[in-house]
Amino acid sequence: MNPNDWFTEQHADAGSAFSLKIKRKVHEEQSPFQFLEIYETETFGYLMVIDGCTMVSTRDNFFYHEMMAHPALFTHPDPKRVWIIGGGDCGTLREVLKHDNVQQAVQIDIDERVTRLAEIYFPELCESNHDPRADLKFIDGIQWVKEAAPNSVDIIIVDSTDPIGPAAGLFSKAFYQDCYHCLAPNGLVVQQSESAFYHLNMIGEMRGAMNSAGFAHLQTLFFPQCLYPSGWWSATLASKASLGAFREHDCAHKRFATVYYNADIHKAALAQPEFVKKAFGLTENAQHNAV
Amino acid sequence: MNPNDWFTEQHADAGSAFSLKIKRKVHEEQSPFQFLEIYETETFGYLMVIDGCTMVSTRDNFFYHEMMAHPALFTHPDPKRVWIIGGGDCGTLREVLKHDNVQQAVQIDIDERVTRLAEIYFPELCESNHDPRADLKFIDGIQWVKEAAPNSVDIIIVDSTDPIGPAAGLFSKAFYQDCYHCLAPNGLVVQQSESAFYHLNMIGEMRGAMNSAGFAHLQTLFFPQCLYPSGWWSATLASKASLGAFREHDCAHKRFATVYYNADIHKAALAQPEFVKKAFGLTENAQHNAV
Repeated sequence: MNPNDWFTEQHADAGSAFSLKIKRKVHEEQSPFQFLEIYETETFGYLMVIDGCTMVSTRDNFFYHEMMAHPALFTHPDPKRVWIIGGGDCGTLREVLKHDNVQQAVQIDIDERVTRLAEIYFPELCESNHDPRADLKFIDGIQWVKEAAPNSVDIIIVDSTDPIGPAAGLFSKAFYQDCYHCLAPNGLVVQQSESAFYHLNMIGEMRGAMNSAGFAHLQTLFFPQCLYPSGWWSATLASKASLGAFREHDCAHKRFATVYYNADIHKAALAQPEFVKKAFGLTENAQHNAV
Repeated sequence: MNPNDWFTEQHADAGSAFSLKIKRKVHEEQSPFQFLEIYETETFGYLMVIDGCTMVSTRDNFFYHEMMAHPALFTHPDPKRVWIIGGGDCGTLREVLKHDNVQQAVQIDIDERVTRLAEIYFPELCESNHDPRADLKFIDGIQWVKEAAPNSVDIIIVDSTDPIGPAAGLFSKAFYQDCYHCLAPNGLVVQQSESAFYHLNMIGEMRGAMNSAGFAHLQTLFFPQCLYPSGWWSATLASKASLGAFREHDCAHKRFATVYYNADIHKAALAQPEFVKKAFGLTENAQHNAV
């Protein structure tokens, strides 16, 4: 395996690594916030790497972007105002704007360069950037949420990098308290929450921080994501009101295409593996109270 | 990344590779059938590699072994006689024998050396090898099934390597016809069916071969499997009678421990991603007919 022919991300703590065969590196730059690289791969299309971590590929991003957007939007009874914190590749924004009831989607990524590179190398993810409902801001999402007025948003999607570096503050109780404060009464947060196989403790800490910030109703959902450590990823929903109301009929009759997500996958993603139930105390009774 | 510190499996067609950090190689041998290697890894325990492909690790095998055994055993109304074709590491056998109603479990792996190495390096997977209901045979599974009498088995679990080399015959219409012939009227086959993300065509061909061998009822189920290409794996159930009857109550009250599997996971594994539905023509009506 000639290292010049491959991009490899080592998952240091997990003792594993994932590699994609590359044709060439097509771009690199140090933005004010992060080191950004773009590779042309043999079979995954383009690959964006931030600070050495794989972020998005042409071929497999649909799993992640669909699962960051649609479960939350089909759980909220009527999502009109959506914020995406991070998400600079614009793939989550595109999925959010597939929902007709969304009136405003604000993407707040601190690093404008991520979006400018996505426009060049992932144009299909940026195809809704000029939707009149879209508003792209390149400012600090933590500060944005901190300064927001109460009842100013229905869903906050935290589409961030790993909980180290610039994104660390997005996994804190203080941030979740600010989210709680600016969300409408039936509002919810959904956040990417790493791998349950590699980072179960981190998910537990995140759930604890969400709980102590006031979110009483939590659901961690699971989906495949080839590009990310262990190939199995998660997102965690935290809601002020009950989380039981999946709008299944609306989902089953959605008027837009998806590649992975559908109503069956929505329900399936919410199934908790036995070791996850044990780790989070989701016995039958506790689980009933949590949803 | 020093190649001496890592075991890497390249997934040639997929343009990706997965690596585990190793402490050392503890064994290698050419058996009469395959080249076998055992590594001690940094974080995944022991790793068995067959002909260059990762087969089983101490840390993550529970996903695969549980999902090869329990969905089939809780779908069949009363599984008494189970055959495992392949499965030489004995992990699937262990899961099968957790079911009290199983009276006989025959493991038929052509390569005795796989089992002998598993006994040394994966003793926890072999802990039921001396169960009086267990019968380990080291012969050709294809021949075994070919020569079997009608109505001699309830469930056939095909726990094989990839559909190349010695296992290729296990993915053929002729083999499925032989399975159909020796299964009881409500019998079923379950077979590992690779990654829906990398090998969708292969799954389609397998389903076609099962169908044309007489199995009218098919279900492909999905689960994470970090060690295998794309990190997302599948198994396909093929039944002579209807496949709708998941014994959910029995599953929810099972008297044995699992790490991943439970009743919710069983149902979740059956959810078909949108691109899979399209590839296999599983529209709502077709799906209804198939289960």
